[in-house]
Amino acid sequence: MHAMKNAFQTVALIGKYMNPEMREQILALARFLAERQIGIFIEEKTAEQSQIKGYTTVHINAIGAYADLAVVLGGDGTMLSVARSLVDYQIPLVGVNRGRFGFLTDITSESMCEAMSLILAGEYQTEQRILLSATVMRNGEPVHQGRALNDVVINKNGMARLIELEVHIDGQFVHRQRADGLILATPTGTTAYSLSAGGPILHPMLDAIALVPICPHTLSNRPIAISSHSKVEITVVQAPDVRMHLDGQMQFELQQGDRILVERAKKTVTLLHLLGHSHYDMLREKLNWG
Amino acid sequence: MHAMKNAFQTVALIGKYMNPEMREQILALARFLAERQIGIFIEEKTAEQSQIKGYTTVHINAIGAYADLAVVLGGDGTMLSVARSLVDYQIPLVGVNRGRFGFLTDITSESMCEAMSLILAGEYQTEQRILLSATVMRNGEPVHQGRALNDVVINKNGMARLIELEVHIDGQFVHRQRADGLILATPTGTTAYSLSAGGPILHPMLDAIALVPICPHTLSNRPIAISSHSKVEITVVQAPDVRMHLDGQMQFELQQGDRILVERAKKTVTLLHLLGHSHYDMLREKLNWG
Amino acid sequence: MHAMKNAFQTVALIGKYMNPEMREQILALARFLAERQIGIFIEEKTAEQSQIKGYTTVHINAIGAYADLAVVLGGDGTMLSVARSLVDYQIPLVGVNRGRFGFLTDITSESMCEAMSLILAGEYQTEQRILLSATVMRNGEPVHQGRALNDVVINKNGMARLIELEVHIDGQFVHRQRADGLILATPTGTTAYSLSAGGPILHPMLDAIALVPICPHTLSNRPIAISSHSKVEITVVQAPDVRMHLDGQMQFELQQGDRILVERAKKTVTLLHLLGHSHYDMLREKLNWG
Amino acid sequence: MHAMKNAFQTVALIGKYMNPEMREQILALARFLAERQIGIFIEEKTAEQSQIKGYTTVHINAIGAYADLAVVLGGDGTMLSVARSLVDYQIPLVGVNRGRFGFLTDITSESMCEAMSLILAGEYQTEQRILLSATVMRNGEPVHQGRALNDVVINKNGMARLIELEVHIDGQFVHRQRADGLILATPTGTTAYSLSAGGPILHPMLDAIALVPICPHTLSNRPIAISSHSKVEITVVQAPDVRMHLDGQMQFELQQGDRILVERAKKTVTLLHLLGHSHYDMLREKLNWG
Repeated sequence: MHAMKNAFQTVALIGKYMNPEMREQILALARFLAERQIGIFIEEKTAEQSQIKGYTTVHINAIGAYADLAVVLGGDGTMLSVARSLVDYQIPLVGVNRGRFGFLTDITSESMCEAMSLILAGEYQTEQRILLSATVMRNGEPVHQGRALNDVVINKNGMARLIELEVHIDGQFVHRQRADGLILATPTGTTAYSLSAGGPILHPMLDAIALVPICPHTLSNRPIAISSHSKVEITVVQAPDVRMHLDGQMQFELQQGDRILVERAKKTVTLLHLLGHSHYDMLREKLNWG
Repeated sequence: MHAMKNAFQTVALIGKYMNPEMREQILALARFLAERQIGIFIEEKTAEQSQIKGYTTVHINAIGAYADLAVVLGGDGTMLSVARSLVDYQIPLVGVNRGRFGFLTDITSESMCEAMSLILAGEYQTEQRILLSATVMRNGEPVHQGRALNDVVINKNGMARLIELEVHIDGQFVHRQRADGLILATPTGTTAYSLSAGGPILHPMLDAIALVPICPHTLSNRPIAISSHSKVEITVVQAPDVRMHLDGQMQFELQQGDRILVERAKKTVTLLHLLGHSHYDMLREKLNWG
Repeated sequence: MHAMKNAFQTVALIGKYMNPEMREQILALARFLAERQIGIFIEEKTAEQSQIKGYTTVHINAIGAYADLAVVLGGDGTMLSVARSLVDYQIPLVGVNRGRFGFLTDITSESMCEAMSLILAGEYQTEQRILLSATVMRNGEPVHQGRALNDVVINKNGMARLIELEVHIDGQFVHRQRADGLILATPTGTTAYSLSAGGPILHPMLDAIALVPICPHTLSNRPIAISSHSKVEITVVQAPDVRMHLDGQMQFELQQGDRILVERAKKTVTLLHLLGHSHYDMLREKLNWG
Repeated sequence: MHAMKNAFQTVALIGKYMNPEMREQILALARFLAERQIGIFIEEKTAEQSQIKGYTTVHINAIGAYADLAVVLGGDGTMLSVARSLVDYQIPLVGVNRGRFGFLTDITSESMCEAMSLILAGEYQTEQRILLSATVMRNGEPVHQGRALNDVVINKNGMARLIELEVHIDGQFVHRQRADGLILATPTGTTAYSLSAGGPILHPMLDAIALVPICPHTLSNRPIAISSHSKVEITVVQAPDVRMHLDGQMQFELQQGDRILVERAKKTVTLLHLLGHSHYDMLREKLNWG
């Protein structure tokens, strides 16, 4: 988490999906970078939706290969999506938020150019965030795989009353629990849905995964935090109607008997912050601890 | 809650839905009552599913008119359903549970005949339990109406991430809240789903309704208990995919803009318990306070 | 909770204890009332501590007998203390808060004179709030008695690890619980300490008492709300070092074997609010539900 | 956490403090070991209080130097105390519980000899548990120092209403919070007091410390888990009456302005379990997840 002094030669700009009103903001940042001789890519869909022309556009999947830094303009939701797409590359991500800053998008659009000056001057720190990898096994075969920066959630659909899940960690039986569902959160995800469900806040530097039951039938079924190197296996024991959600953005319908294997993804995401950034400042501000 | 000394002339027996294995238990109770010259009705579906013959069968809706007492053999779920069906009559209900006793079915099948002797001898106490009435208003018209002995739950379906509801009580604005959903529970319902969501236990004698948010986004959105004579209005502000559940047994799909009016139902249900019955004994036993 | 149209002839002003800086505020309000020919009493200690002269001063205990209305200038803590002192009289109380308004002191000092105009014109509503009465029985004799507008708290002192209490309600055994302590809160008190301990919010109109355990050893020992007409008896089973607190303002050292009888006090306190006052507005503001 | 195959030549037996009724159990274990030619030490006070003669007795502080294994007969409280005393030595500890097994004393007295046979045969696994070290700084000088295997608790005494603490982690300001107190728990301690206060369960293998507020005034002040390598500094901002507790067994009176530095102790404690031991089995059993 210390500063590095190497300039970024090529910067990719990625805007919030389906949000044409970001046009001016993206153009302002592009101009700012162009004046400083920085190579600029605009993510393909961002350019199309915001009707931005005159810049090289690239598909999201190619950004990791061609750019040195990705600036994400949007909210935490946009950052989640971009992070999952780019995690296989080493490219660092920095988030610019239009409204009130987010946990992952900690630069406001007002201070965007000033912040970028500092970053280009090497005045930044980086941070690694883990992702979870979830694989659904059905009859011994993997039928679905995905990653999540915030959380893997297995929960009931509208029709179900409650679902029954069996949890094993590192091959050890933990429990069968009846609940609305179960959240497996990275430290990053512990300030999102997990917090609403009563989960603890895990500092991003902690190599941990939180297992947080949603409205558990047994009142002593409390949140557990385990090593991020543990392997979690969840079996859908009873589930007339149950789904898996990744970062609340992707869904997969589960069936009775499905086993979901959740473990830390091999690659981490690199977030870039200004020097002096503190996760505790974020918590204090976002959770109104003032 | 004191004992009354009038014998029940006619008793209706109602078994758990789709549970033919109750046959022996129902027959045993019927024989016991017949020996004591008590008139017996078997609920129509119960008789059919359990293949019980030789007794007068009546439709559930007619039981209230023709019987003096209804014995419900099943679990709390069966009792919820029967209570909603019979609430418009004055008929008292007594619950017999096959396994571990329930909050509403507090007589075990082992002690069933002994308990019935006491009841026929007037050795019992009665208790009134309130129900909630929920009406869905759409474009100014009522489009759905139902009652609940446990709870009215408005929650997201599988597709939604969270829903936004606006709550008014007695015409006063309470809040807009983003959450997985909202539970409105009677005192009876506070030991069911509401408890899993973090709600308080309300004693059945308390004329109250609990409003319990499910995984609220705002951490200070805590459960509230209000007078059971208050009128609650919930407006579905944002809801790509939201439903209302009554006692977790009936569902109705809601749309954005729907207003759900929830208030105490006019009639109460009469539960019959053995003398000495204490709700605190139930809590201690069921919640493992021992 | 509807307005009444009778003017108040004599108003008593009571300031926060040991807070001489209230002088200007009290004098401003006194001048405002004097100009309107309202008789003014200044509470004895308030006058002394704020060095206010030229007004009739009365002992706090005499205010109820001589004034038609008491204006409390301070915070919720001051109001708690005044309410306990004046509860045996019918005198209504109105609270003026210097800083951010409180739950009981809902008029800000800035709008103080404007609010008083409305009140003198009969533009107000009143509300009854219950108090709890606590009696400590030792060896069959009452050894201490007190009242509380917010809460009766029985908790461990610094030396103890946890205490064991046995609870009966209306003569029925509830449980023995090991915990840091137990809060018995009026609806008024449910937005104070009780809330921090995980208790529900009870609307002031609800005739209820909340029993909220403080850090209970048994995780399923959840808050319970009962009728305010119930009688609660708490026996100190194990307590090397335990106290009873009334409104967090008065303390009494308990001994092993002490029985504390808690019930609704016979008299209620009358709070006076401006028309349009809503408890939900207070909750939204104070709990940051915005 | 895998088994090692080296026999223990000398075993020390330590009984619960002030519990003479352990005599038979200790003698039985001593006889069992003597028959197997294992050298036996009885802890000095244990021998004295249980009136055990004919064995070599040693002071608790010398056990680490002279024995290869310490068997603790008592409950978790005894183990906490012994662990703090012996942490500077490498000696492994095994706990035998008289009643229901504990989290740290996971062998029952009934299976004690059988378990010891397995252990002597090398059929065991070991586990490292971290301790916390707490240093109280007053006017720039350390005035108190202690260690804890479960938790460092800073909380109000009986007189105080709430205390105000300022928390820094790794030099970064976290918050000022008003609460009954603050718990800093090791993973071991997260199943003790911390759990009652709403804290998460941290698996013993997780290198983490949990910060759990006790009845915090600000409802969003939720438990946080941080790396066990972080340094926590707590400043007593306002505290008419506040103490620090180590494992709930030792106390130190704090003053306003005191700074408490809490960090991981340099040495860890080695617990010895039978093969197949699983922390999840313990949780399931002790928390009634069945």
